[in-house]
Amino acid sequence: MSRRTVSKVDFPVSKIRRFLEPGPVVLLSSAWRGERDIMTMGWHMVVEFTPSLVACVISEANRTFELVRKSRECVINIPTADMLDTVVRIGNTSGRDTDKFEAFSLTPLPATRVRAPLIAECFASFECRLHDASLVKKRNLFVWEVVKAHVAKRPALPETVHYRGDGRFMISGAEVSRRRLFRPGML
Amino acid sequence: MSRRTVSKVDFPVSKIRRFLEPGPVVLLSSAWRGERDIMTMGWHMVVEFTPSLVACVISEANRTFELVRKSRECVINIPTADMLDTVVRIGNTSGRDTDKFEAFSLTPLPATRVRAPLIAECFASFECRLHDASLVKKRNLFVWEVVKAHVAKRPALPETVHYRGDGRFMISGAEVSRRRLFRPGML
Repeated sequence: MSRRTVSKVDFPVSKIRRFLEPGPVVLLSSAWRGERDIMTMGWHMVVEFTPSLVACVISEANRTFELVRKSRECVINIPTADMLDTVVRIGNTSGRDTDKFEAFSLTPLPATRVRAPLIAECFASFECRLHDASLVKKRNLFVWEVVKAHVAKRPALPETVHYRGDGRFMISGAEVSRRRLFRPGML
Repeated sequence: MSRRTVSKVDFPVSKIRRFLEPGPVVLLSSAWRGERDIMTMGWHMVVEFTPSLVACVISEANRTFELVRKSRECVINIPTADMLDTVVRIGNTSGRDTDKFEAFSLTPLPATRVRAPLIAECFASFECRLHDASLVKKRNLFVWEVVKAHVAKRPALPETVHYRGDGRFMISGAEVSRRRLFRPGML
């Protein structure tokens, strides 16, 4: 299960839509009073550029739910397609009885602005603080502010995995540009 | 600009995550008192299976914002990759001075549960009613209930487009299954 850690550099938080808006499965890492967890997550969306806001839904069946609700922090990590088996296994293991970093040989790295750990093997990691908890109780819906972003320099467009349900995933395909069709203010 | 309309059949509303969770750009159609509009949208996520809930963010700069706020209805339509130029042009045209159905030769079809029109050229259309407006004012965040879904029978996996910002799109790639790694209750 060992795989390479990925060297990352600072990235502007207002531009992370580039990585999240296409809809990849992400790994959400969290920590609270000596406990930590990783959760596989597909229900997220960009909410605002500045501040850099991202919403997500976390079922209270996940150990992660209590850790992020109490710590009011998390890290959103984006795995590449070569990590797919690990991504699926994480989503099929309960954090209540397993330390997922150990179980899946993933490397926790200290973040700079939050206490939740970065996952070194992922190509991008976004440190988040809870920005709006008003729909947590009613809908398990968290709105996060990304306060620090780390992204690998290469490759520019890593393959990501996108969940379709029923155990099936779409792997990201080719990139195409339509910049010529955009009004300047829309880019 | 003429293209084929797509014949669609009823689809279970609790299973539409299959189409939305991978993160495609969608076309949101709306209507209110004789006006109608189409908006290109990438900021959406699944919120719940049953009832079938979907959240999205709509800037009040869009004509669509007022139409959906007042009508409390919309249709989320999923275009295929062959419609990419139209999708981009719709996103770069204001609905304040243009009827986008006419301008882009798209065919409005009557929905069954809402007054907003379906877009006949899209491969899937989800009729939505506003379910939770509590974050509309503060964050432009709408939570919709999908009350009726229409999906084309073929192809099973149409190519979709996923926005990266800066005028660049990812086209959906291959499907892979990892069903063997799932616990039965997780499928």
